[in-house]
Amino acid sequence: MAERVVVIGADAGGMSAASQALRTAKSTGRDLDVVAVDRGHWTSYSACGIPYWIAGDVASADALVARTPEQHRANGIDVRLLTEATAVDTGAGWVEVHDHAAGRTERLGYDQLIIATGATPVRPDVPGAEAPGIFGVQTLDDGGAVLRALGGGRELRRAVVVGAGYIGLEMAEAMVRRGLAVTVVDRGPEPMNTLDPDLGTQVHAAMENMGMDVVTGAGVTAFETEGDGDGGSGAVRAVVTDAGTFEADIVVLGTGVRPATDLARAAGLPLGPTGGLRTDDTQRVADGVWAAGDCVETWDRVRRDWVHVPLGTHANKQGKVLGTNLGGGSARFPGIVGTALTKVCDLELARTGLTEGDAVDAGIDHVAVTIESTTRSGYFPGTKPITVKMVAERPTGRLLGAQIVGRDGSAKRIDVCAMALWTELTVGELAMTDLAYAPPFSSVWDPVQVAARKAADRI
Amino acid sequence: MAERVVVIGADAGGMSAASQALRTAKSTGRDLDVVAVDRGHWTSYSACGIPYWIAGDVASADALVARTPEQHRANGIDVRLLTEATAVDTGAGWVEVHDHAAGRTERLGYDQLIIATGATPVRPDVPGAEAPGIFGVQTLDDGGAVLRALGGGRELRRAVVVGAGYIGLEMAEAMVRRGLAVTVVDRGPEPMNTLDPDLGTQVHAAMENMGMDVVTGAGVTAFETEGDGDGGSGAVRAVVTDAGTFEADIVVLGTGVRPATDLARAAGLPLGPTGGLRTDDTQRVADGVWAAGDCVETWDRVRRDWVHVPLGTHANKQGKVLGTNLGGGSARFPGIVGTALTKVCDLELARTGLTEGDAVDAGIDHVAVTIESTTRSGYFPGTKPITVKMVAERPTGRLLGAQIVGRDGSAKRIDVCAMALWTELTVGELAMTDLAYAPPFSSVWDPVQVAARKAADRI
Repeated sequence: MAERVVVIGADAGGMSAASQALRTAKSTGRDLDVVAVDRGHWTSYSACGIPYWIAGDVASADALVARTPEQHRANGIDVRLLTEATAVDTGAGWVEVHDHAAGRTERLGYDQLIIATGATPVRPDVPGAEAPGIFGVQTLDDGGAVLRALGGGRELRRAVVVGAGYIGLEMAEAMVRRGLAVTVVDRGPEPMNTLDPDLGTQVHAAMENMGMDVVTGAGVTAFETEGDGDGGSGAVRAVVTDAGTFEADIVVLGTGVRPATDLARAAGLPLGPTGGLRTDDTQRVADGVWAAGDCVETWDRVRRDWVHVPLGTHANKQGKVLGTNLGGGSARFPGIVGTALTKVCDLELARTGLTEGDAVDAGIDHVAVTIESTTRSGYFPGTKPITVKMVAERPTGRLLGAQIVGRDGSAKRIDVCAMALWTELTVGELAMTDLAYAPPFSSVWDPVQVAARKAADRI
Repeated sequence: MAERVVVIGADAGGMSAASQALRTAKSTGRDLDVVAVDRGHWTSYSACGIPYWIAGDVASADALVARTPEQHRANGIDVRLLTEATAVDTGAGWVEVHDHAAGRTERLGYDQLIIATGATPVRPDVPGAEAPGIFGVQTLDDGGAVLRALGGGRELRRAVVVGAGYIGLEMAEAMVRRGLAVTVVDRGPEPMNTLDPDLGTQVHAAMENMGMDVVTGAGVTAFETEGDGDGGSGAVRAVVTDAGTFEADIVVLGTGVRPATDLARAAGLPLGPTGGLRTDDTQRVADGVWAAGDCVETWDRVRRDWVHVPLGTHANKQGKVLGTNLGGGSARFPGIVGTALTKVCDLELARTGLTEGDAVDAGIDHVAVTIESTTRSGYFPGTKPITVKMVAERPTGRLLGAQIVGRDGSAKRIDVCAMALWTELTVGELAMTDLAYAPPFSSVWDPVQVAARKAADRI
């Protein structure tokens, strides 16, 4: 008899797990019957693409969908949308789901449960935070809501973006490109606090060059709404921070996300200190219970600790590992090193491993160096500036982390640093690796190696 | 008393060695007196930039010079140009040099000798190969000679490039961009024989799209010259191959180079089977004799054998290692993995490690997979096609090599494969590493990881 698999959450983690489980089961001879529920309208989409959809780079939400419900169904998965999981009993082996369209609640029994409930935007815990006009951007449905607001009858002129991290930056750029006056407020000393502030200054300048107002050191204390003072609960009209009040017709939250694990917590499943589900390296949470994606904690190989890093690339890999194991194969998720990148206008930025600030906080004896170089040979047309900052442990020389800020052709170089972190190379070794060189692509010492050499010399 | 160091060859390998030796000596308290001789007019230049100078991307030879003779002299190095080393006596410790400007020959005694004599273009061993109008392109002086020919009184309309490797491709593009009709002849089945022919077809198509005539399977049997038949020894007028005869006003040789080690051979120094000087990993050849750059053999970590790979990036690294050791410090050159890249028009191509052909030749049990992907998320504006081919050992899964052909943003991804080769990762491990993802930069599984995954699945 077929084993019943229930998947909660039909985006990257859950559906790559389900698809891989079926693929593996085919080769191991296991018989799986897979049901996937999601409270939204979509399956397997690129949440990372939402800001580009809003900016107009991508024509429609459909373009962001890697696999539609119909494709999943053709593949043998019983996908049920607008269907919200409301309770889990891991002892009895059922999930209670509510079908919002039919208005019906039922229990789905399972032999294997996949939890892929993703993450939820954090709302500042201040007055007015739930007002209309304040948007988190985590799901395609969230993106659609922002677009409806922008295209609605009321003309929106001023956007305030709260938080200058990845989503904040990308959404701020999208708003500028849609013609809004944009203010970005962030509590840190510089935007992009996953970089050290000395590189954050370049991000700050790029944002201002795009016409954004950037306000740092600005923690949000309240959202003013229409009808404030006479008991109204209307739409947002301003963001109040400890560095001033900023009028807003629309507010976008880039204040991070937290794992959506209320259901798992209620079911008594093990959560780590980040609030994410704690899995082993097969993505197993407990007997018959698995998890992947933005709802789990991930092992950081550099920090040697559990972290919550909600990224589609991890969700896909974890889903594949989960599905392989659930389907009767064998795979391990080996952890992460903290690689991420984005761009603001034409400024690319990337990071991996520890920043200098991280190393200081962790009390690690280290050196930090910063170099300026060029993306191509200095004499080659189209060469662009690139800044590489590198942090290495002392006295071992082990690479701890790298940050890159530069123009076209800069940011993906972070992958070399990620590989060096992965295999625990020293900066001296990294400086001598065999990276590709030709004048249209690199200086004769790749900028990453110029930084590694300088760090090695300093140790 | 100061130790006398004589450097033969004032380009990348020799001068980075000399400069580093002085830097290290300063910290170790050694006293070095450095003389560098070169038979040409230049120091420390980017030979890799010559095709771009000829194409017009780079305004002048000066732009290719990283450090001038004056800069080296200011740094304490006695640079003597137009001065050719003609003999070495390692027993007695002297180099005989001939100053072409002064017409004077003298012996320079040394305590430490650095041989950095570079490489010489291979001329096909066929009639007419020494005719005027046939150019190798290895030194800035060679590049100047080509430019003088192109700018001379006689109008040049037809160029034939012999050999479709890196230099051949780059020079063919330069000739097209200067308005010549260009034919490229190569003896292999497809251009760029450091790629497997199935990827070479893309290079072939890109060359034809630029307007080149590409003739494969065409070994050169002779060069016809003006005055042939009546005893003349005039300029080249055609290239005769076993696939036809091609008229030429100018011929560029892209038929490879060989280590320029005649002097070293005559001095009885150890050469390997490639003809390159054999050094240890400190770049030491013998007591008091060192070598770096295009004149040496290099350890290939993947092949586990000595190879001759004349590239500026290796020359610079070897020079730095050499200078560190000569100056009293300690450094090791750890070898290479065979990484290289270039572009033809807007087609980027890159390779590292073994090709499928190499694996077959070496009798290694392997799998080879090829995938098509995109440089950015498929839905992101400006996304371009990229092809990745990967070769892995069976049954271990160890990565053996990778090749990439694609448009803007493709080729530098080879560095990730180079890092994986360096640290002997399996394709399964490579597929799970933490590479940077955001829609403007990559699909959610980087194309390199898509290939690694497929290879892992096939093992």
